[in-house]
Amino acid sequence: MILSDSNLLQSDYIDGKYHKTRLITNLVIERIREIKDKMVKARKYVVKRHFQGVPKRDDFEIVEYELPPLKDGNFTVKSEWISVDPYIRAYNPNIPTPYDQFSFQLGKVVESKNPDFPVGCKVVSHKGWCDYTVFDDLVEVEIGFASVYKLPDLHGLPEELAVGALGMPGVTAYFGLLEICQPKAGETVVVTGAAGAVGSIVGQIAKIKGCRVIGFAGSDDKVEWLEKELGFDKAINYKTADVRKALKEAAPNGVDCYFDNVGGELTAVIYSQMNKFGRVSLCGCISSYNDDPSKMTKTTTLLPSILFNQLKIEGFIVSRWASPENRWPEAISQLAQWIKSGNIKTRSHVTEGFDKIYDAFIGMLAGENKGKAVVKV
Amino acid sequence: MILSDSNLLQSDYIDGKYHKTRLITNLVIERIREIKDKMVKARKYVVKRHFQGVPKRDDFEIVEYELPPLKDGNFTVKSEWISVDPYIRAYNPNIPTPYDQFSFQLGKVVESKNPDFPVGCKVVSHKGWCDYTVFDDLVEVEIGFASVYKLPDLHGLPEELAVGALGMPGVTAYFGLLEICQPKAGETVVVTGAAGAVGSIVGQIAKIKGCRVIGFAGSDDKVEWLEKELGFDKAINYKTADVRKALKEAAPNGVDCYFDNVGGELTAVIYSQMNKFGRVSLCGCISSYNDDPSKMTKTTTLLPSILFNQLKIEGFIVSRWASPENRWPEAISQLAQWIKSGNIKTRSHVTEGFDKIYDAFIGMLAGENKGKAVVKV
Repeated sequence: MILSDSNLLQSDYIDGKYHKTRLITNLVIERIREIKDKMVKARKYVVKRHFQGVPKRDDFEIVEYELPPLKDGNFTVKSEWISVDPYIRAYNPNIPTPYDQFSFQLGKVVESKNPDFPVGCKVVSHKGWCDYTVFDDLVEVEIGFASVYKLPDLHGLPEELAVGALGMPGVTAYFGLLEICQPKAGETVVVTGAAGAVGSIVGQIAKIKGCRVIGFAGSDDKVEWLEKELGFDKAINYKTADVRKALKEAAPNGVDCYFDNVGGELTAVIYSQMNKFGRVSLCGCISSYNDDPSKMTKTTTLLPSILFNQLKIEGFIVSRWASPENRWPEAISQLAQWIKSGNIKTRSHVTEGFDKIYDAFIGMLAGENKGKAVVKV
Repeated sequence: MILSDSNLLQSDYIDGKYHKTRLITNLVIERIREIKDKMVKARKYVVKRHFQGVPKRDDFEIVEYELPPLKDGNFTVKSEWISVDPYIRAYNPNIPTPYDQFSFQLGKVVESKNPDFPVGCKVVSHKGWCDYTVFDDLVEVEIGFASVYKLPDLHGLPEELAVGALGMPGVTAYFGLLEICQPKAGETVVVTGAAGAVGSIVGQIAKIKGCRVIGFAGSDDKVEWLEKELGFDKAINYKTADVRKALKEAAPNGVDCYFDNVGGELTAVIYSQMNKFGRVSLCGCISSYNDDPSKMTKTTTLLPSILFNQLKIEGFIVSRWASPENRWPEAISQLAQWIKSGNIKTRSHVTEGFDKIYDAFIGMLAGENKGKAVVKV
């Protein structure tokens, strides 16, 4: 690019040979410095190897690199909010390493050669744990999420909700409950991982729909939050309660809908108390994510419960509502209305600092968060 | 009833006191004998206690009793074909003992005070393991099957099919596969218990629908029958094969539909090889029927497979297609056509004798039958 610079070439013929070479050298050095200054130093988390059990700090490497100069159609985004979610752990075994750690994030366009994404524009993407990114493709990425969309109108709500209740976790709760469980007023809905980003929204949507809502969570503090602030009819600390007995008391007429984030033995107990034609939306099974994939945990068989009560179980990934038809805007718009009207309360569990993403992730996996775990960078 | 007999009372006043008493005594004895002769001695199997593991002969008692005289609307049926099926074992833990052993059976009306069911009429009912029955109610019975229906037009096919391919097992295969799995031409369908009454029909329906069909069965003899006579693309002896490897070879493009009669570890292997958006019709889990209900077997968790491949699992009981809308005739009529045209082959595994029903039942549970296990009484 430098050698085709016409000003530089013109100067060749004005000055003598020695002078010309020196001039070229100086100019080249100057231009390289100029371009380097324009280049952004970026950082990203790279997963070096497949996790064994709980992911270790050392499984990740923070790689510093220079962003390439923008081509036409490209733009650079500076990350502002980065999400940590259970599926990040779940997908690890099936992706060849090393790979850049994906996740949802909200950022601002800081440089642009794309008129559709001008400087200052905010975008939600699946570019993951990085501080700057150049968007040089707008194609689908690994796990099926569209690679970028503009921050939707949040009606003045906090922007970090775009990766929480008004982003992937909210859309997951919305369609996963309403489309798969199809809860009816008066029915009993159970949700596990109830104090998490998805579960806390699921329970509140079920309340809006007129259901009796029972949540399972892992601490008394979460139980209190769910019952006192979010309006759950009953919350149960699965770590300390006799869950079979507690659920019988909380759901004397049985369970009609179950939104499962957790799996494991707790799920077997819940299935055993489901009513005829009950519906299960299987969103996650975080209790087994740290298992060795070649040696999965054995749990009490669910099949007799499914059979004799004629249950319907469906596993889902929220990308199914992004394509071929994109229904995310429908969910985000409805959720925003419910949040504005106070029918849904949100809570962000914020960790600050790009260097703390790993800690936020591990904390979330250990259940430290109430509401959405998110990192402000 | 005897004392109100007007002839008897009239005779009192013709003869003297002594004579009158003797006459009454003789007449009473004569009338009792007459009524007793008209009464039918009937036998039925009563389940005395809940089974522990494999049902024992001693868990049943053959009770002999006299059928009551018919009231208006009643009729008596003499059993001809009695069915033995896995669900007989499965329902045992949840029914208070003692109870009369239910099952489907085909019989002939031998006495009738019901113009809708005249003498000679053949009926299919859920009256179970008995040689004679009086039908004195036409209400729904315990497990939701209509208590009686007239033998449908079998188009000249063997009558015992009315409790097999043209009865409950056939209807189970028909709706369980077509409504729940919704197989499409070119898809791969797997069925376990493939040589059984239901599984053998499922596989053949899937072939009619243009699918690649793989069956799991428990002997080389059954495997040969499935491949050579019933046209399965591949059958696998799950007792001797490396099922994971064998299924990978038989279904190189993965499994789209799974009709599960068996459950257990075999089911976990099949789930792990299912394609995105695969459908599972859960019809039975015979591998766990002999388990202690308070201490169910632990098996490899199915949840990650259901989640990541977004599978849909549905347990069903065939009575759902009997009411509120009765769709059994639709299935029976279609199955009869397929059998007549040679697209579906049936096979009955016949045991003879009312006293042998227990043996037929235990043999069926142990997998001795190819095709439908049925008792000719």
